[in-house]
Amino acid sequence: MHFIVTKDYEELSQVISTTFLNYMHSSNKRVNICVTTGTTPIRAYEILAPLVKDKAYFNHVHYYVVDEFWYKGNQGEADIPVNKMSMDMKFFKDANIPQERIHTLTDNNLHSFDEDIQKHGGMDAVVMGIGPDGHFCGNYPDTFESWNEGSHLIDRYCTPQINSLLLRLLNEDIHSKDESRIPNHYFTMGPKTIMDAKQVIMIFTGKEKAATVKRAFFEPIDMNFPVSIFQLHQNVTILLDEDAASDIKEYLFRKE
Amino acid sequence: MHFIVTKDYEELSQVISTTFLNYMHSSNKRVNICVTTGTTPIRAYEILAPLVKDKAYFNHVHYYVVDEFWYKGNQGEADIPVNKMSMDMKFFKDANIPQERIHTLTDNNLHSFDEDIQKHGGMDAVVMGIGPDGHFCGNYPDTFESWNEGSHLIDRYCTPQINSLLLRLLNEDIHSKDESRIPNHYFTMGPKTIMDAKQVIMIFTGKEKAATVKRAFFEPIDMNFPVSIFQLHQNVTILLDEDAASDIKEYLFRKE
Amino acid sequence: MHFIVTKDYEELSQVISTTFLNYMHSSNKRVNICVTTGTTPIRAYEILAPLVKDKAYFNHVHYYVVDEFWYKGNQGEADIPVNKMSMDMKFFKDANIPQERIHTLTDNNLHSFDEDIQKHGGMDAVVMGIGPDGHFCGNYPDTFESWNEGSHLIDRYCTPQINSLLLRLLNEDIHSKDESRIPNHYFTMGPKTIMDAKQVIMIFTGKEKAATVKRAFFEPIDMNFPVSIFQLHQNVTILLDEDAASDIKEYLFRKE
Amino acid sequence: MHFIVTKDYEELSQVISTTFLNYMHSSNKRVNICVTTGTTPIRAYEILAPLVKDKAYFNHVHYYVVDEFWYKGNQGEADIPVNKMSMDMKFFKDANIPQERIHTLTDNNLHSFDEDIQKHGGMDAVVMGIGPDGHFCGNYPDTFESWNEGSHLIDRYCTPQINSLLLRLLNEDIHSKDESRIPNHYFTMGPKTIMDAKQVIMIFTGKEKAATVKRAFFEPIDMNFPVSIFQLHQNVTILLDEDAASDIKEYLFRKE
Repeated sequence: MHFIVTKDYEELSQVISTTFLNYMHSSNKRVNICVTTGTTPIRAYEILAPLVKDKAYFNHVHYYVVDEFWYKGNQGEADIPVNKMSMDMKFFKDANIPQERIHTLTDNNLHSFDEDIQKHGGMDAVVMGIGPDGHFCGNYPDTFESWNEGSHLIDRYCTPQINSLLLRLLNEDIHSKDESRIPNHYFTMGPKTIMDAKQVIMIFTGKEKAATVKRAFFEPIDMNFPVSIFQLHQNVTILLDEDAASDIKEYLFRKE
Repeated sequence: MHFIVTKDYEELSQVISTTFLNYMHSSNKRVNICVTTGTTPIRAYEILAPLVKDKAYFNHVHYYVVDEFWYKGNQGEADIPVNKMSMDMKFFKDANIPQERIHTLTDNNLHSFDEDIQKHGGMDAVVMGIGPDGHFCGNYPDTFESWNEGSHLIDRYCTPQINSLLLRLLNEDIHSKDESRIPNHYFTMGPKTIMDAKQVIMIFTGKEKAATVKRAFFEPIDMNFPVSIFQLHQNVTILLDEDAASDIKEYLFRKE
Repeated sequence: MHFIVTKDYEELSQVISTTFLNYMHSSNKRVNICVTTGTTPIRAYEILAPLVKDKAYFNHVHYYVVDEFWYKGNQGEADIPVNKMSMDMKFFKDANIPQERIHTLTDNNLHSFDEDIQKHGGMDAVVMGIGPDGHFCGNYPDTFESWNEGSHLIDRYCTPQINSLLLRLLNEDIHSKDESRIPNHYFTMGPKTIMDAKQVIMIFTGKEKAATVKRAFFEPIDMNFPVSIFQLHQNVTILLDEDAASDIKEYLFRKE
Repeated sequence: MHFIVTKDYEELSQVISTTFLNYMHSSNKRVNICVTTGTTPIRAYEILAPLVKDKAYFNHVHYYVVDEFWYKGNQGEADIPVNKMSMDMKFFKDANIPQERIHTLTDNNLHSFDEDIQKHGGMDAVVMGIGPDGHFCGNYPDTFESWNEGSHLIDRYCTPQINSLLLRLLNEDIHSKDESRIPNHYFTMGPKTIMDAKQVIMIFTGKEKAATVKRAFFEPIDMNFPVSIFQLHQNVTILLDEDAASDIKEYLFRKE
């Protein structure tokens, strides 16, 4: 594990955006980056958008949204991919990324996704944040029994806490409180799909993430705190500001 | 995961020995291979020994014994590293490997081992078998709470089942039944050390391993069946004969 | 550069065949190996054939013939790919390799070859011998002016020395002396295609190769001795017996 | 080869500085970057310096100056490494890089350099510009006869054109015209050392480089235009602005 501790959120955002550029510049073959919505990367996306917009030398970069909720369309309207829509607002529109280089999970691509990404060179990097209960994307503590060979990519049923999260998202982003349009299931890349990525980058800001960071990377691996499995990945980078690193300072010093 | 299913034990042994040669030939820089004693690789070691013996072009290959018991010496005699001694009999002597290229765990190198192996280029391959309870090396089902950042390599206390295993080994190998010479602790590379290896190769022979193979690689990841974590490693090869593969045939066909 | 010096031709052949097996076993993704006809690898192919024949676990291995002459067919008969036919006799038939995993250069695939091999994961290894004038495949000393960006793979016109070589080959292999059936051009992978391979393996046997080996790897890079460019490749393995190594012993010792 | 064509020098400098950051962020193991003085990267170094200065997370980055002239000291003064001094002024001072992470060639480290860099993990990237005669670092057209196995790193005698270059540099940088202090030899990393780097990054700005770029990458490999050998490297990135790319547009379009 490779820790980069920045002074504050602004420097963290600089480093996150540079990390994205790393992958974009690294090759002239197709580059596949898995992105997540959430609040931590918002400033990084702002820095990134003008550096990426309309640059022909980034035409080989493809973006994957790590999990997806398909909010049901109103009479005859198409369903709305909530997370993709959120990424549109935070990055894809300002960076003018064409639709054919944005990928999101659907009922149709679910079972062919892992094979498909391998055909396109594999996932290069996954950039993601972590919840206080140790969940990553839709991989919650009580879901690990489905982490078996047959389901790298997981189709899950909506649970009450997802529903309330979704309502909040919808409220913020599309001003809707219509619970009947909430889907009964959502999609998430599963632990094996993400462990297969060449690099996993996790980002944390603020004191309220300090305990999560410690438990995730410096306490025993525990299926009830799913992010802890990334202790077993060979190429993990953890980008965090000083506040988020406040509970792990002794470990970082010990390493030097 | 990459499965190679051979007709029988003899062909399996051929493939295992070729797999060792792969690593030996792959570079002129130091190559680090982690070996285990046990019965499965015995024939492979027999095939391998004359191909390796006194070949100058294999002088850069170093061998690591994955776990170790130090049987206490009799009055003034040195302690005996039981697994290293077993490897001497099965391979190191016939292949004439000099002592300076054989490494085994001790009280002294335990805490510097992970750093040390990184300095020497990292572990290239670990070749190992698996017990019916899903343990690998000394990583038994009830030990996973110690899989934390501070202990890539684990120093464990001997438990009754270890003692009886050790007694059996000692009985077979050095005709001793002196229980007072059994150590109170033993050493094993832990899950992180092994997950850090560039490739993990697991070998299985016989119908009695068929259920283990299925549970290990085609059922949910489960800390109570430790080998299942290798579902999360990016470069795992499973070498097994048709008998050992008898419970997973449907999965292998499905993959093709 | 990585030199493996074997005692004699038999041990050399063992090592060559193991080197092939390395690549075959290394992955469950498609493996692409470029092979050459010639006399040096004959014994290695003999060792290899029964280990490869009808093994399902080698179904992902594809073979590329590095250069090709299309001997013109007699009235209405198809043209004969001379080098592929030679490989059939030395290896492909005994190993029962199906036609769809054997690739040879034609007028049709010449210009799409480099792009095509990249789509299939790139060339993993090229195994080849070298002529006394430093040529490799059809890359003769006087051809380097055509080594430009537009022609990774080269379509060459037959020169008198090629014609005599071809006549000898045809005579040995298909007992024909019909010069009118000799093609006016042949195909060869060019230097860039081969430099792009992940590993280049060169094989030498006998005292008559000793001077070639020295000039190739221990004298200045020289476009008039084309093999010398492989001094610039990052992953070259040279397999040779003691006779072929007789002029470079001082350099090998100096390296140790 | 991977071409990135930017609008102008400012965007080029942004991309160059990002490319440096790529390597700095890529690992927590030692990262070795080879830098060159010259005018093209000046603006990139300006952008980079504040992003690097005093950042603990870049403490593992080591800098190598690709060639060196040791200007003779005045009575009792130490000799001056001209290129290192130039890099001090352009980057090392503003970025506050400590001396122990800056490496320059001397009489003492010349013969152990290649082995030494391998021990420290190999050279990760070389960033360099190219002269109009195709030279890179001190590898001029008439020097290729010394590109043999024994001299990855080359110690050269100063030629008149070097002397005049050196005088100009000295004049600009230390306001000296004292020809008696010009050394009789200088040091340069040779072609093999640079071909061994994991990535080679070449940077070009301005119309006056357009013909050099074309000849370097789209005309035959030619020892009299040394940079052309990088057509044979597996991982070359060429960063250039539109002016420098003006003679190669047809080739870049053809590739897409």
